[in-house]
Amino acid sequence: MDSHELPTPALTVDLDVLERNLDRMAAYCREHGLALRPHTKTHKTPEVARMQMDRGASGLTVAKVGEAEVMVAAGLDKILVAYPVWGSEKLERLARLAHDREVLVSIDSEATAQALSHAAHALDATFGILVEFDAGLHRCGLSPGPECVALAQKISKLQGLKFRGLMTFPGNIWGTKEERKQEIKKVIVRFESVMEAFGKAGMEVEIVSGGSTPSALMSHQIPGLTEIRPGTYVYNDLNTYYQGACALEDCAAKIVTTVVSTAVPGRAMIDAGSKTFSSESLHAGPATGFGHVVEDPDTPLIALNEEHGYLDIARSSRAFRVGDVLTVIPNHVCTCVNMYDEIFLLRGGRVQGAWRVAARGKVR
Amino acid sequence: MDSHELPTPALTVDLDVLERNLDRMAAYCREHGLALRPHTKTHKTPEVARMQMDRGASGLTVAKVGEAEVMVAAGLDKILVAYPVWGSEKLERLARLAHDREVLVSIDSEATAQALSHAAHALDATFGILVEFDAGLHRCGLSPGPECVALAQKISKLQGLKFRGLMTFPGNIWGTKEERKQEIKKVIVRFESVMEAFGKAGMEVEIVSGGSTPSALMSHQIPGLTEIRPGTYVYNDLNTYYQGACALEDCAAKIVTTVVSTAVPGRAMIDAGSKTFSSESLHAGPATGFGHVVEDPDTPLIALNEEHGYLDIARSSRAFRVGDVLTVIPNHVCTCVNMYDEIFLLRGGRVQGAWRVAARGKVR
Repeated sequence: MDSHELPTPALTVDLDVLERNLDRMAAYCREHGLALRPHTKTHKTPEVARMQMDRGASGLTVAKVGEAEVMVAAGLDKILVAYPVWGSEKLERLARLAHDREVLVSIDSEATAQALSHAAHALDATFGILVEFDAGLHRCGLSPGPECVALAQKISKLQGLKFRGLMTFPGNIWGTKEERKQEIKKVIVRFESVMEAFGKAGMEVEIVSGGSTPSALMSHQIPGLTEIRPGTYVYNDLNTYYQGACALEDCAAKIVTTVVSTAVPGRAMIDAGSKTFSSESLHAGPATGFGHVVEDPDTPLIALNEEHGYLDIARSSRAFRVGDVLTVIPNHVCTCVNMYDEIFLLRGGRVQGAWRVAARGKVR
Repeated sequence: MDSHELPTPALTVDLDVLERNLDRMAAYCREHGLALRPHTKTHKTPEVARMQMDRGASGLTVAKVGEAEVMVAAGLDKILVAYPVWGSEKLERLARLAHDREVLVSIDSEATAQALSHAAHALDATFGILVEFDAGLHRCGLSPGPECVALAQKISKLQGLKFRGLMTFPGNIWGTKEERKQEIKKVIVRFESVMEAFGKAGMEVEIVSGGSTPSALMSHQIPGLTEIRPGTYVYNDLNTYYQGACALEDCAAKIVTTVVSTAVPGRAMIDAGSKTFSSESLHAGPATGFGHVVEDPDTPLIALNEEHGYLDIARSSRAFRVGDVLTVIPNHVCTCVNMYDEIFLLRGGRVQGAWRVAARGKVR
């Protein structure tokens, strides 16, 4: 079946592009001696995680215990929960996973350390702990200095916990190449200052985990970094493209959609809206619009309702008819994929099968 | 269990508020002789649809064939698909439903009429058809006049179709009470003009379907209207509240969330982000922020990442600690509910059970 014959809206992935994206990141990490612990939040799909592990990933990153459970159930071990998990029910589930395999957790407070220790001890498990520092995003993470050392020292004294290293999410490295070049300078200063504090304290830091898709290929510039955790690079999206961090041809995930109405002059309405793309604005480049129409890039997708996408065809040379099938690259592929229970697999535009987005909706 | 003891993030509904919202809309419709065919897109939950039917709803509205299938599987018949469905696979599924029960579909093109006719005929089914006109939103729908009559006449000649009336979505009635009062005047003119065209043609119009939550209680002002299809009113949300179309106490659905990090000065991070609220901006009132924190309304939720919500606590008098449980009213409840596989039921703050959001993710 051709992808244009799929019932719509449908989420699709071009396997050739996916494999190329995976190969490229794996090669970059090998070249620079960095471990790759990709974040599974983008694909939420064990089959893609397996492809990442097969290409030499050192483990997998998740944000939620439920995501970890899905990956473990698929036989994928070595999990980093890059999230300061809180709540006894979730911590008990996580300790159950940690009982039989390596589970790392990133934290930035003594309260979370105590709770993790309690949960680990109750099930005779061990959590490896990364202390999260703030590289400039100002989201989570301690100030990069003695505060991190103090938390690491407390962790070392708690039963069921083993201090393994440091973690940060450099989401502030964002924007044009020039903007990202400027921001990484500040990030490097913050890395230096946290490493210096651990050096002074004579504490070994085995893992220093960073990375994001827009910053990934700049990671070798960061002193002390041992691994990166990009997520979006598997599929890429318009945010990545407009930052110059991928080509349009590197966008592997697209929505196949159908024009369902041309009754209003100047409009073609497609059967994909905020419940199929997510309602994410574009946070890079023109910072306007809700997707890139592959067949007619000059026709803007100007607005979304839940199940309707508004194409402004007033200045389009193409005639839009009810039944026309279009393919659209989403603004933010991670929130888009999270709308779908399945993703259709394409090679050369032909449908090869489908994967279940098994960790979709694992909010806890 | 108290709602604050739920593993977070958790979607909850206060059943007392839900029932009051359902009763109020049912009473309004009874009082004004309007049928109520509520849109299930908000709750996507057969249990809520059943409560609507039990309160006298004339049927249910859906946007997707998959949603219709979920409602039918739960024993709920009388479905309006308020969407110009396109595609042979979906139309065949819809015809299968229509074979045994009343299924109405709204359309605005002859192409869709032909495709529906073909699908109905192949399975010896009948679709009731509503012709969609544009009441001013400029999304779908023919111009309100002779074009609608022409399409209705074509429908009347097609096998497997029965022209039943007119449909519009008055989503342009939006904003403050004053803005909505001004907009409904224009909507009324458009209703008059389409009714006049059918009158001139001597064609009977059995059903005239309109309504949305912000316009619902103004519906009796619209001449010729026979029914309304509000959706959001079951749960309400910040968009509804800031339009003055409900009180804050009428917001039945809330996210229970936990503070997971206070490491960055001026910030408290919660474990709910764009994958639990959806990334919808606020489209009414202050038009800023991503939710209303019930326990501390003056503390703004200023940004969302996928699994993180950013509380700006710089000017807050409250001390935020890791582990604090908060409840948040979302901007747009329809896209929010669509993130979850289950919704927890509360009475007096105590958890009574949970419903499956069975039609979640039914994108086709």
